[in-house]
Amino acid sequence: MPHTIKKTYHLPSIILVNPQLGENIGAAARAMLNFGLTDLRIVNPRDGWPNDAAIANAAGAFDVMPTPQIFETLSDALKPFHTVYASTARPRDMVKKVFTPSAAATKITSISNHSAILFGAERTGLTNDEITQAHHIISIPVNPDFWSLNLSQSVLLMSHEIYKAQDKTAAIEIPQGDSAPAVHEELNNMLCRLEDELENKNFFRSKELKPTMIRNIRNIFTRNEMTEQEVRTFQGIISAFIGNKTK
Amino acid sequence: MPHTIKKTYHLPSIILVNPQLGENIGAAARAMLNFGLTDLRIVNPRDGWPNDAAIANAAGAFDVMPTPQIFETLSDALKPFHTVYASTARPRDMVKKVFTPSAAATKITSISNHSAILFGAERTGLTNDEITQAHHIISIPVNPDFWSLNLSQSVLLMSHEIYKAQDKTAAIEIPQGDSAPAVHEELNNMLCRLEDELENKNFFRSKELKPTMIRNIRNIFTRNEMTEQEVRTFQGIISAFIGNKTK
Repeated sequence: MPHTIKKTYHLPSIILVNPQLGENIGAAARAMLNFGLTDLRIVNPRDGWPNDAAIANAAGAFDVMPTPQIFETLSDALKPFHTVYASTARPRDMVKKVFTPSAAATKITSISNHSAILFGAERTGLTNDEITQAHHIISIPVNPDFWSLNLSQSVLLMSHEIYKAQDKTAAIEIPQGDSAPAVHEELNNMLCRLEDELENKNFFRSKELKPTMIRNIRNIFTRNEMTEQEVRTFQGIISAFIGNKTK
Repeated sequence: MPHTIKKTYHLPSIILVNPQLGENIGAAARAMLNFGLTDLRIVNPRDGWPNDAAIANAAGAFDVMPTPQIFETLSDALKPFHTVYASTARPRDMVKKVFTPSAAATKITSISNHSAILFGAERTGLTNDEITQAHHIISIPVNPDFWSLNLSQSVLLMSHEIYKAQDKTAAIEIPQGDSAPAVHEELNNMLCRLEDELENKNFFRSKELKPTMIRNIRNIFTRNEMTEQEVRTFQGIISAFIGNKTK
């Protein structure tokens, strides 16, 4: 049977189960939207809903994302989902797959199932009965001597991993402003001129050491991946030192 | 020259530059310690130091980590570091390498340089002069329409990536409690018995479809990677349905 490439996937929903502090609900909403998640569901928030502290801590996220849906039971909140992940710091004695956040994010963004990720109350986390309703567990590897993550921080880490699983940002970039990167010839001209002018100033006192010193100097500037503008700037610095304003 | 494998690296220090809210300083300290970072330096905290709101939000982190060092200027705070990373949402018109958090974490945990990671004030982030003191930039890829991350959340993401770069946790695990995973023979015995008992109940009405139905049933249970205990439990379920308590 041919391999089918799934081209679409649903972004996961975040479900907060019995959250206590509005501050955390708001911070969780902000964290979700920072990474493009917009479906927040809340089961039985302790302080009711809407909640002023949540709005104050969301930094405007609730103005952008759909209104969170409120449910009385977890089972009601879970009805439309294909796959449910329970985020918990300590996998209990339950035989379920335990994913790292990044492994779960890879799975969630690879298949077209609509997934939900559950986060429990601040003090207690998810109960065993709540975890039992999930297909899988997500556990964040953490300092074993200081393992209690803030609720909104857990939501943030998971949202970040979901974003990263879709993101194409280069791991390392060098933005060069308006200037192009210098080609070898430009850099080499600059370095040859530097060497000539240093020779004129009797910088290279030892003939034996001169080749090594030149290699070291070249390495300083070559490692830099300089732009054309930076090469011109450094040519100006050489001119300034030798008292020649016209180069 | 032979390649030298560096076996040690320093965990990076976190430097908060002109932070405003004690809440964020405390949450940042908690987030650091969650992922094993303990050296926090603070430049010119707006509300002074020590700070009650910071302590309240640190969830005890300040009792475990060394006392944060307070500095009047960024340059003072940076004195001992080999490599400085500036965390900023928007790389300005500066020609520096821009790392994703994970790429920076890989570099930091690969070489023995002592690194610091700078985070700016809540409203304004790092100034251009502050960024200029850094060797490199870290930029968190983020929803471009809602890009403002909370300060402590930024510290958390970076701390998490540092932890992940060192962490050996399996991406996916199935803890099996006290029971070992079932071997093929145990699962196969269970499935053969299920098929026999279903045959006895005339479950397979169509002879043509029977092989397909059996394959489908086998897939339900094979995909599960069941434990020995779970196989025994299901054997008990079959026995219960056929009214045989002794199998």
